[in-house]
Amino acid sequence: MVPHSGVFLDEWVAEWEKRLSWLTGFTGSAGLCIATSERAALFVDGRYTIQASKQVDTDHFEIVELYKIKPAEWLAEVIGRESVVGYDDRIHSHSSVKKLRLELQRLNIELRRTENCIDKIWLDRPKPAYREISPYPEKFAGESRKSKIQKVAARLKQASADFTVITKPDCIAWLLNIRGSDFERCPIMHAFAIAGIEGIVELFIGRPELKTDFPSEFGDEVVVRPLAEFGRALAELRGTILVREEGASDWVFGKLVDADAKLAKGDDPCGSLKAVKNDVEIAGSKKAHSRDGAAVVEFLAWISSHADSGQITEIDVVSKLEEFRRSTRKLRDLSFDTIAATGPNAAIVHYRVTYGTNRDLCPGDLLLVDSGGQYRDGTTDITRTIAIGEPGLEQRQCFTRVLKGLIALSRMRWPADVTGRELNVIARYPLWLEGQDYDHGTGHGVGHYLGVHEGPQGISRRSETPLSPGLIVSIEPGYYRKGQFGIRLENLAVVEQVEPDECIDGLEMLRFRTLTLAPFDRNLILADELDNHERAWVDSYHAKVLNGTAGRCTSTTREWLKEACAAL
Amino acid sequence: MVPHSGVFLDEWVAEWEKRLSWLTGFTGSAGLCIATSERAALFVDGRYTIQASKQVDTDHFEIVELYKIKPAEWLAEVIGRESVVGYDDRIHSHSSVKKLRLELQRLNIELRRTENCIDKIWLDRPKPAYREISPYPEKFAGESRKSKIQKVAARLKQASADFTVITKPDCIAWLLNIRGSDFERCPIMHAFAIAGIEGIVELFIGRPELKTDFPSEFGDEVVVRPLAEFGRALAELRGTILVREEGASDWVFGKLVDADAKLAKGDDPCGSLKAVKNDVEIAGSKKAHSRDGAAVVEFLAWISSHADSGQITEIDVVSKLEEFRRSTRKLRDLSFDTIAATGPNAAIVHYRVTYGTNRDLCPGDLLLVDSGGQYRDGTTDITRTIAIGEPGLEQRQCFTRVLKGLIALSRMRWPADVTGRELNVIARYPLWLEGQDYDHGTGHGVGHYLGVHEGPQGISRRSETPLSPGLIVSIEPGYYRKGQFGIRLENLAVVEQVEPDECIDGLEMLRFRTLTLAPFDRNLILADELDNHERAWVDSYHAKVLNGTAGRCTSTTREWLKEACAAL
Repeated sequence: MVPHSGVFLDEWVAEWEKRLSWLTGFTGSAGLCIATSERAALFVDGRYTIQASKQVDTDHFEIVELYKIKPAEWLAEVIGRESVVGYDDRIHSHSSVKKLRLELQRLNIELRRTENCIDKIWLDRPKPAYREISPYPEKFAGESRKSKIQKVAARLKQASADFTVITKPDCIAWLLNIRGSDFERCPIMHAFAIAGIEGIVELFIGRPELKTDFPSEFGDEVVVRPLAEFGRALAELRGTILVREEGASDWVFGKLVDADAKLAKGDDPCGSLKAVKNDVEIAGSKKAHSRDGAAVVEFLAWISSHADSGQITEIDVVSKLEEFRRSTRKLRDLSFDTIAATGPNAAIVHYRVTYGTNRDLCPGDLLLVDSGGQYRDGTTDITRTIAIGEPGLEQRQCFTRVLKGLIALSRMRWPADVTGRELNVIARYPLWLEGQDYDHGTGHGVGHYLGVHEGPQGISRRSETPLSPGLIVSIEPGYYRKGQFGIRLENLAVVEQVEPDECIDGLEMLRFRTLTLAPFDRNLILADELDNHERAWVDSYHAKVLNGTAGRCTSTTREWLKEACAAL
Repeated sequence: MVPHSGVFLDEWVAEWEKRLSWLTGFTGSAGLCIATSERAALFVDGRYTIQASKQVDTDHFEIVELYKIKPAEWLAEVIGRESVVGYDDRIHSHSSVKKLRLELQRLNIELRRTENCIDKIWLDRPKPAYREISPYPEKFAGESRKSKIQKVAARLKQASADFTVITKPDCIAWLLNIRGSDFERCPIMHAFAIAGIEGIVELFIGRPELKTDFPSEFGDEVVVRPLAEFGRALAELRGTILVREEGASDWVFGKLVDADAKLAKGDDPCGSLKAVKNDVEIAGSKKAHSRDGAAVVEFLAWISSHADSGQITEIDVVSKLEEFRRSTRKLRDLSFDTIAATGPNAAIVHYRVTYGTNRDLCPGDLLLVDSGGQYRDGTTDITRTIAIGEPGLEQRQCFTRVLKGLIALSRMRWPADVTGRELNVIARYPLWLEGQDYDHGTGHGVGHYLGVHEGPQGISRRSETPLSPGLIVSIEPGYYRKGQFGIRLENLAVVEQVEPDECIDGLEMLRFRTLTLAPFDRNLILADELDNHERAWVDSYHAKVLNGTAGRCTSTTREWLKEACAAL
C-alpha cells in the first residue's frame, strides 16, 4: 500500500516521500495505490479521477474512485484469502490501519507492517535534507514559548495525561515559536515533539547541531534531540499519553503500545490552542492582508487594462500576481500554488495550470484566481473571479448568487456553540434556490504564518467545531459550470464577539470580521438582484478596501481602485 | 423515582398513570420526582421551573433544574453509599435506566426494579379503562394494512431481525389502519404490538372482546390478544428482535433478555415508514388544512372586529376558536390544548391559560394563538400572532424578522441528505443578525390524524434526519420578550421534489409545499423590511389562502379576508 502522504499524514510531503507520484505519476493531493504481483489500482476521490487518468499509465494501474469501491472490496476481489497486505506503519494513521485491518480480517486477509517496498526499488530517491530552523519573534507570535508550553501542560492536566505526542509540524512551529523551510508554501520543519505535564518539550529534528540564534535561545523548557531518537523516546515514555488515532501514525501507536503506555483520547491541545489567534496575531494578520490586498489590487488593475489584449495566458497571470506580491518586499513565499483558470479550466475545482493546459484570456470568459501569500505577520488566501471583456447574463446571475452567499455568511451573527456545519447552509442558500450548488466546503481554517489549511475549525458539512472568537476561516462559495466557466469568491475572516449593545436581548453573539481586502468585479454584479442590506454591505466593504489599500498603491492603480470601489 | 411519563414513555399519559401530578401537583409535560424518606426533589427543565414553583409545595419538594443538577448528583448528596433507589421498569426507557445505573454504580448506589410505590398509596387512582377502537379506512390511509405490514417485514429482513416490538401507540395505529380514543387530543389506543418477518402482527389491547367493525375486519395478518398477555408474549419470542433502547421500556428489555432473545439495534421501522406520507395522506392533509384554515380565517375575522372591545379574554379566544373549528362538522378533536396568550403571557413559550392567569385582550398587546385540529383526513397545527389595536414599532420589527425567517425557510430548496439541523439556521438568521433568538426548535414532525408531534423528522439542532419527500414538518420561528410580548408564526409544510426543469444543473433538489392556509397580520408586517422575493412570497401565499379558504367562509368574512390577503 503506497499512500500519497508522508510521515506527517497531511499535505506536507517531503521530496523523498513522494512515493506515490514516483510509482504512478499521479501528483494530486490525496490518493492510495495498492499493488499486488498481478494487478495495481490507484484509489482517488471524485475530484481527481480525470487528472489521474491523464497522469497515470492505465495499462498498469486501474483508476478506482474511492467512494465507489473501497480498498478492502478491491482486495477481496483481486487477492485470495490468507494473503498478506504489507504497509509502512510510519505513513498510515493508526485509525485508518485499525479500520482496514478489521475489514480485511473478515476476508481472512492479514494487514502486516513491513519495510517500505518502494524505498527498496526507488534508486534515485532524494536523500532526506533538513534546512535551517529560525526563531519566530514574539512580536509576531504574541505569546511566549514558555506560556504556550504551560498552556499545553494545563490541557494535559485537564485530560489526566502526562504527555502528548505532537506529530504535526505546524503545531510544533506554533508551540515553540519557530519556523522552518523544509517544505514549500508553508514555513515548517521536519520535526516531531513530545510535550509533558511538567512543561518540558522534547523536540526531534534532523540537524540538531545547526545553530544560528537557535537553539541557543531556548530555555530549559525545550530539549533538542536528533530525529532518529524519536522512536526510542516514544518507547521510553511512562504514564498516560494523549494522542489522536486520526492524527498519529500506526508507528507512533505501536511504539507506545510496546512501551505499555496508557493512552488517553482527546482533542489535540496544540491544534486547538493554535487555532485561536491572539490579539497580536490578529493585528499582524490585518497588516498582512492590507499589504497583500494592495498587491492584489495592483494585479486587478493590471488585468483590467491588459486582459482584453488577447496576449495574456493563465501562466502570465500566475507570474504577474507573484511579481506584485514579491514587490511588497515582505513576501516569504506563496501560501499555495496559485490557481489561475479561465473558461472551462475554471470549472475544474483543483485546476493548476501547466504548459499543456495553458489558455489565453479571451473576451467573454471569466478568470478565476485563487492565491495567497506567506508573510511573517500572517498568511493570506483570496479568490476573485474577473470578467474578461463583457460578461454574459448567465455568468453575472451565477456570480451574483455566489456573492449573495458570501455576503450572507459575512453578515452572519450567531450564538456561541454554533458550528461550521450549521453556518455552511447560509452561503449555499442563494444557489440552492435555483437548483445550483458547489462540490467543496464553504470554508477552512487558516494558520498564522503557517498552513493555509488548518483545523479544527471550518465551514462544511463535516465541521462540528463551534466557531468561537479568534478563529480565522475562509468564506468561499463558488459555482462551476462544467465545460464552460467557474466562479469562486473567497475572503478570510476572523471570529469576534459582537458588542453587547448591538444585541437586543444581551445575548452573547459572535460575528465575522473580514480580513481580506480586494474589490469584487462590479461588471459581474447584478445590483438589482441585491437587497438593500446586501448593497450596503458591498459598498461598505469596498470603502474599506479603498481605505485599507489605496495608500500602498501606485497613483494609476489608485484611480482605477476608486472606480472599482465606487458605490453600486 | 416517579417520572411524568407512563408506559408509552411519551406525551401520552393515561389518567391512571398521572402519578407525578398526583404526587407533586406539577402538570408540565416532562419531569421526574425522586423522593427519599427524608427529602424529595422535582427535576424539571428550564422552561418549567416557574410553573413548577407555582404548582408544587416547595416545603416538601425542592425544584431542581435538570441541566444544572443531574439526578445522580442530587442522589450522591442526599443518600448514602450502598443505598437502593427503586424504579418501576415499565415507565422508564431502557437507555435512561442503563445510563443512570452506570452513574449510580460509581457512587455504590443500587438502582433496583421494584413495584410502583405510588400505586400502593394512591387510593383513589382511576382504574384502567379502554375505549373502542375503530378501523381507519384506506380512503384516508392511502395504503392497506397488509401492504404496511409487509413493508415492516421487509425492513426486518434488511436488519436481519425476526421481530420488532412496537411500543408506540401511534405507530400501531398507523400500521394497522386503526384509531382509538383512549387519550385526548390524539386518536390512539392503549396498545402494544409485535410484528414479525412472516407478516403477522400480534396486537395487545385492553378489551380484545370489543367488536364493532373491528377486529372482525382484520385478516389473518393480525392476531388480537389481551394486553395482559404482552409480557408473556415477549418472554416467548425466539430469534433476533429489533427494538430501540430509547423507545422501549426497561421492562420490555428485561423480558427479552430473560428470554435469551438476540437484540438488533436499528431504526424503528414503523416510525420511519409512518413519517413518509403517501399521496392520499398528502391530498387528505391539504383538504384538512383548507377546512381548518377557513375556521381559523373565521376566527381571525371575528377577532379583528371584537378584540378592541376590551371584553375578550384569552379563555374566550380558546372557546371561540374551538367553536369555529367544531362548526366545520368534521373536527374529531383539537390536536392539542390551544395556546392563547396576550401581552407578557405570550412570552411564556408553554403557556396554557387558566382562570388564574386569564388576561383581557388590550389595545397595544399582541395575541399569540397556537392551535390545531384532528380531522380524519389530517392533523393541523398553526400559530398566528395578531395585533390588538395599533402595534408598536418594536413589535412590528420583531414580527417582521420572525416572518422573514419563516419565509426564508419556506422558500428553501436543498439537495437530498440535508438534515433538519442544517435548515434550522435559515429561520433564525434574521433574528440572529440583531442579537435575538428563540429558545425552542424551529419545527417538529406531524402525524396523519395522529400525533401532532412525531419523529424522526424535525428542524432543530438535534434533528439529524434528512428531510426527504413526504415528510410533514412545522416551520415555526418565534421571538419572546420576557415580561412584554411573544411572537410565533407556524405553518405546516410537506417536503416534495423540485421539478427537474426548475433546477439549473439537473440536481435533485427538495422543497417545502406549505399546507397551512391563514393570513399573516398585515398590521404587523413592515413591508419595507422585506425584499422583492419576500414580498412576492407573502403576496402569493395570501393569494393561495384566499383561493383555498374563501369558498368555505361566510360572506362577511370573505370581505374581511380579501383585505387581509391584499398585496402588500
